[in-house]
Amino acid sequence: MDPDDAKTVAADIADRLRADAVERDRANHPPCEEVELLRNSGLLALPPDDHVTTHAVTRVVAAADPSIGHLLGYHYLHLWRAGLFGNTELVARMRRHPHLFWAGVSNPPNPLDTGLCMTPADGGFLVNGRRTFATGTRVADRLLVSATRDDTGGSCTFLVDARAPGITHLDDWDNIGQRLSASGSVVFDDVHVDTDDILGSPAPDADDPRTLQMSLSSLAFQAILAHLCVAIAEGALAEAADYTRQRTRPWVLSGVDAATEDPYILAGYGELAASVQAAGLLADHATAALQDVAGRGTALTAEHRSAAAATIFSAKIVATKTVNETTAKIFELIGARATATRFGFDRFWRNARTLTLHDPVAYKAREVGAHFLIGRRPEPTAYS
Amino acid sequence: MDPDDAKTVAADIADRLRADAVERDRANHPPCEEVELLRNSGLLALPPDDHVTTHAVTRVVAAADPSIGHLLGYHYLHLWRAGLFGNTELVARMRRHPHLFWAGVSNPPNPLDTGLCMTPADGGFLVNGRRTFATGTRVADRLLVSATRDDTGGSCTFLVDARAPGITHLDDWDNIGQRLSASGSVVFDDVHVDTDDILGSPAPDADDPRTLQMSLSSLAFQAILAHLCVAIAEGALAEAADYTRQRTRPWVLSGVDAATEDPYILAGYGELAASVQAAGLLADHATAALQDVAGRGTALTAEHRSAAAATIFSAKIVATKTVNETTAKIFELIGARATATRFGFDRFWRNARTLTLHDPVAYKAREVGAHFLIGRRPEPTAYS
Amino acid sequence: MDPDDAKTVAADIADRLRADAVERDRANHPPCEEVELLRNSGLLALPPDDHVTTHAVTRVVAAADPSIGHLLGYHYLHLWRAGLFGNTELVARMRRHPHLFWAGVSNPPNPLDTGLCMTPADGGFLVNGRRTFATGTRVADRLLVSATRDDTGGSCTFLVDARAPGITHLDDWDNIGQRLSASGSVVFDDVHVDTDDILGSPAPDADDPRTLQMSLSSLAFQAILAHLCVAIAEGALAEAADYTRQRTRPWVLSGVDAATEDPYILAGYGELAASVQAAGLLADHATAALQDVAGRGTALTAEHRSAAAATIFSAKIVATKTVNETTAKIFELIGARATATRFGFDRFWRNARTLTLHDPVAYKAREVGAHFLIGRRPEPTAYS
Amino acid sequence: MDPDDAKTVAADIADRLRADAVERDRANHPPCEEVELLRNSGLLALPPDDHVTTHAVTRVVAAADPSIGHLLGYHYLHLWRAGLFGNTELVARMRRHPHLFWAGVSNPPNPLDTGLCMTPADGGFLVNGRRTFATGTRVADRLLVSATRDDTGGSCTFLVDARAPGITHLDDWDNIGQRLSASGSVVFDDVHVDTDDILGSPAPDADDPRTLQMSLSSLAFQAILAHLCVAIAEGALAEAADYTRQRTRPWVLSGVDAATEDPYILAGYGELAASVQAAGLLADHATAALQDVAGRGTALTAEHRSAAAATIFSAKIVATKTVNETTAKIFELIGARATATRFGFDRFWRNARTLTLHDPVAYKAREVGAHFLIGRRPEPTAYS
Repeated sequence: MDPDDAKTVAADIADRLRADAVERDRANHPPCEEVELLRNSGLLALPPDDHVTTHAVTRVVAAADPSIGHLLGYHYLHLWRAGLFGNTELVARMRRHPHLFWAGVSNPPNPLDTGLCMTPADGGFLVNGRRTFATGTRVADRLLVSATRDDTGGSCTFLVDARAPGITHLDDWDNIGQRLSASGSVVFDDVHVDTDDILGSPAPDADDPRTLQMSLSSLAFQAILAHLCVAIAEGALAEAADYTRQRTRPWVLSGVDAATEDPYILAGYGELAASVQAAGLLADHATAALQDVAGRGTALTAEHRSAAAATIFSAKIVATKTVNETTAKIFELIGARATATRFGFDRFWRNARTLTLHDPVAYKAREVGAHFLIGRRPEPTAYS
Repeated sequence: MDPDDAKTVAADIADRLRADAVERDRANHPPCEEVELLRNSGLLALPPDDHVTTHAVTRVVAAADPSIGHLLGYHYLHLWRAGLFGNTELVARMRRHPHLFWAGVSNPPNPLDTGLCMTPADGGFLVNGRRTFATGTRVADRLLVSATRDDTGGSCTFLVDARAPGITHLDDWDNIGQRLSASGSVVFDDVHVDTDDILGSPAPDADDPRTLQMSLSSLAFQAILAHLCVAIAEGALAEAADYTRQRTRPWVLSGVDAATEDPYILAGYGELAASVQAAGLLADHATAALQDVAGRGTALTAEHRSAAAATIFSAKIVATKTVNETTAKIFELIGARATATRFGFDRFWRNARTLTLHDPVAYKAREVGAHFLIGRRPEPTAYS
Repeated sequence: MDPDDAKTVAADIADRLRADAVERDRANHPPCEEVELLRNSGLLALPPDDHVTTHAVTRVVAAADPSIGHLLGYHYLHLWRAGLFGNTELVARMRRHPHLFWAGVSNPPNPLDTGLCMTPADGGFLVNGRRTFATGTRVADRLLVSATRDDTGGSCTFLVDARAPGITHLDDWDNIGQRLSASGSVVFDDVHVDTDDILGSPAPDADDPRTLQMSLSSLAFQAILAHLCVAIAEGALAEAADYTRQRTRPWVLSGVDAATEDPYILAGYGELAASVQAAGLLADHATAALQDVAGRGTALTAEHRSAAAATIFSAKIVATKTVNETTAKIFELIGARATATRFGFDRFWRNARTLTLHDPVAYKAREVGAHFLIGRRPEPTAYS
Repeated sequence: MDPDDAKTVAADIADRLRADAVERDRANHPPCEEVELLRNSGLLALPPDDHVTTHAVTRVVAAADPSIGHLLGYHYLHLWRAGLFGNTELVARMRRHPHLFWAGVSNPPNPLDTGLCMTPADGGFLVNGRRTFATGTRVADRLLVSATRDDTGGSCTFLVDARAPGITHLDDWDNIGQRLSASGSVVFDDVHVDTDDILGSPAPDADDPRTLQMSLSSLAFQAILAHLCVAIAEGALAEAADYTRQRTRPWVLSGVDAATEDPYILAGYGELAASVQAAGLLADHATAALQDVAGRGTALTAEHRSAAAATIFSAKIVATKTVNETTAKIFELIGARATATRFGFDRFWRNARTLTLHDPVAYKAREVGAHFLIGRRPEPTAYS
């Protein structure tokens, strides 16, 4: 599927998701049918190294349903970051099944949380433990999992069937936004992992060029989050405009015959449309920065990474501000009657507010500021 | 009950309402038990002419549950505005039963909506029709109703038992916020109203001093809305602070041991606390302005009214901005895990967003601006 | 002069200052004539313990000329805080000359700056050194000066004639705002201070109740700054409105005949007027809090002080935000032609921007937040 | 000169302008030497049809001195829009002298203003009248002038030497910002214009494709204004960062050793840097949209124009907001001492505030909103 076709298909998927987005948000069922839609669309097979296309496709889907866009964006991300371990054979095997939906289980960034533990066992490992907020795992076919080896204390990443014996998916994701992102907990109980399914480990020391390359993962996460935010804002704006055109009444004191002639409503849409466009361009710019550093291979330097990080975090900052403002402000453009639950306009804000707390935007601003002001490189972590 | 006692009782009611506010918001049952709580508290009997006390009490209750605060504030409002018709005997009768909960059914401000119609019938009138968004009627004991007389074409206001034969309350209020405000539709089907229960009609001409006095009603509505907004902001801030103290984790890059030491979280609370305090003082000032004009009787001039209106609308503008910002911003101070549905932190924003659309704040700003800039008097309407 | 008379006189002074405020701002001469105006007005003699009146008077003057309001507010402040040293006889002497204009020279808050040094000399001390940003000293009659004793290392505060031999006032205050606040440097070169003119020293230990009382000084400074900000906003709004009424043209695409009918201009004024009113009420509330703690004498507790501090800092936060926004936004309400230098509308913003940097508002927010969130008491310093 | 060389040269010019920008802003002399710098740089000869390059060059120069960037951007604009009249011979003659600096005198958009009048006279016309706000004319070599023919009542555009007999440049531009943009009045007193120097007139009717093409002029103006705003923000941010690094002291309560470690300063820079980057990308996008419609020739449709207008106006809206916020906020990042007049940091805000009032941004928002909401095409005027 070429990029243009992919966008067309994505737009079609988006139309289907948009049609019952409100009902599905309320029902809060695991997004099994939605993921099946993705499987059948062929979109899962897009080359994961082409971030420009995968991010564009993610944004189109996310504008209609940001939970499903979230799942799709992470799917591409996991397939791509698997390649950073340098295990080309296993990556080839991963990509051989273009209809499988992938999700990931990472090490917990917060040392307070226990994660997964791997114990050498015959022909491989037994994995035990629990991981919260494992987006997509509940509805995935395959998982890309990181765990701590209890023999070495190091981290190790492997592939496993999402429905392998011993894996339990808890339906404990019930949050105010991104409700269909299947971000509940996953429990591993003596799950066997074959040695052949071991993707690899972080490079042993910080100076290894592979350490730097693998640190691009967190940038890719941030870039996707920026696109999801922009997508939510785009979706909110489009659906609000539909409502204003079709249903909003002119205000009694406005002196105009139609809400679409109200000076405050018009200027309100203009300001939002302008802001969202700017945020979207910066998200695209962030993707280009990611594409650039991801393509540098061993020529990648810490300087390259930090410049890309500054751009990507900037996109996250602007997208965060824009989506929170847009999804709140649209209500003033659609009016009081649009607060009826059946219209579901609050879902945009709930999705935005939830997504934009993934990691605190103040710290993104601090990192961008330190890079701008004194050239400090953002320290690579699970969130930056 | 003196004002201090009333505030103590209100604080107690607030504590009880706060305890299960999240669950009740989700269940979305008609607030029968909540109104029973108000009946038993003695709060319904406060003198409705003492706006300073009734607004203070309303705010305390609304900080815990803005729907119930909404009902309580409107109860006082209806009892007070009944007095503006000059029918002292009937008003005395209204106030004789201190445990009755009152709600109102007004004429629709938008000519597109049909309202209620009164037809002279033996010993009184038969009332027919339907009114949407009739806050509180579903759970009220008595109603203060305005309808259009089909013999004269004029408006007429009367009292009626909320459960009189022919009155049906529809459970069609299902909105994203103020969910327990019982703001569904009421249907009148040949409801008999006795002549003795007729409160009165608007003064026949615009120059009648009573016209001006009756036009204070809409100012009182606006003042209550301002207090409800402030209350939501106060409640949101207090409950967020509880969460931050008890549950929020320090961010991995923050370098501090506790979320309560995070510089961005501290400054965030400081900015919100300062804003909310300013909005609260302006709402109190609005109440004082209302109290002043309401006490002037026939000495009231259009100049007095418009000065009070400017103050009250200013309070509404500032409260609107403050509550929308506060209820959105708290999420950055409580963190990602606080988006779990069980904590219900989105209800503050949903309540705020719904309440602040009652009438468009841009038009309030236009009226305040016109008064400030060229001394134009806000034209009295159902909303201003 | 009773408070009402004082406000009337202040309004008269304000009218005179407003008339040539633009020219005086540009000429940037030391405000000798302006201070003479204050001397002759009788306003300098108001009781400095009546903060409610002195702050109100300061605000009225500052709305017309915030530099002169600044000088006046600090004059009252120095007379009042002199009383905190407990030297009643000397304070009585200070207040005996109601037409003298007072300014202060404090110890530098930043240890990097050298301040003034006192050396015991016959019958008193010789004072040497230099202090920057000594607001008002250039045009003062008398100074309240704090210096470091080089025999004890402690701080000591004394009174001195502003034109005493050895005192030189440098005209080195040339800043973008508050240009007439005479905030240049003062140099002391072997200035003799008589023992009789020693007001006192800080209490020897932190637990002494006088330490707490003296720490109210910084709160009074902050409260005055809040009023100055509100005053600038009030002045800006009033003068912008004059301009809009008299000169602003309706925009070609507006479809209205007069700028005073433009929907965006009207709503713009409405939002600003509402915000400024809220900020003003909070500044008044801050003054009331100061008045309360200042009147408690030895009954003052650290708890009282910190509650007052939180209120006063809140007023500063809100006033800072409001004045910066108002003085920038007015330009959109007066239009492009109003940027001509001769109208001087930028002075409001320059004054606001300069004044609001006196100490960083983010740290005020942090202190208010810490008090709100965990009840932490702001540590008394020269700025808080 | 190829585009890359042009940017290098522009960066060099910018360095020279930045060195004494504060002093030149204060002195407020006509920018004769600055324009001479442009003449000698070779930059005036860039192909005016290459908006991508001319806008980029304009932005680089404007970041150092937005008045001079303004002059340069308008120079290109006039050379380009001259081509829209279809008088290829005369345009070729215009472009034959690559070192001439061009400015324009347009018809007044506001019917209240009188403009220039042309009377047929032997071999050409005599031009009389006065035009205010004629940016650049005071220091230009040649002028592109529009006037009203008093025989036909139609508009006519011609070329004239800026120092031709009868032309007087008044030094009446003394505004708070863009002080060196030479935007004073020009007076024509029986100025002779030869028939050979007549560029042309608007197409006789609205349906003529040339009418549509000529209406692109106002879009080009708006795009340049957007870039100038972005440039001011970029310049402000860069110079503020220099100051923070070199001079700003850590705040006494900050607990950090350097201002460059202050959490609020870092986050402040991060937020601004992110916003400015987004605004810059949207301005570039606006240029691309202009380049696209300008290259369509007779294939241009009203639909194309309005889509480009929406993008360009969006850029203007975002740039306006960003530059006003950035130039005000930097002060919190540089601190109180940076308000000394000699640092001149207020010039960024004064330039921004002046430039962003060229036409009211609320009406740009209304037009973008109407295009977004109901597909309404912005009506081409001198400002849109």
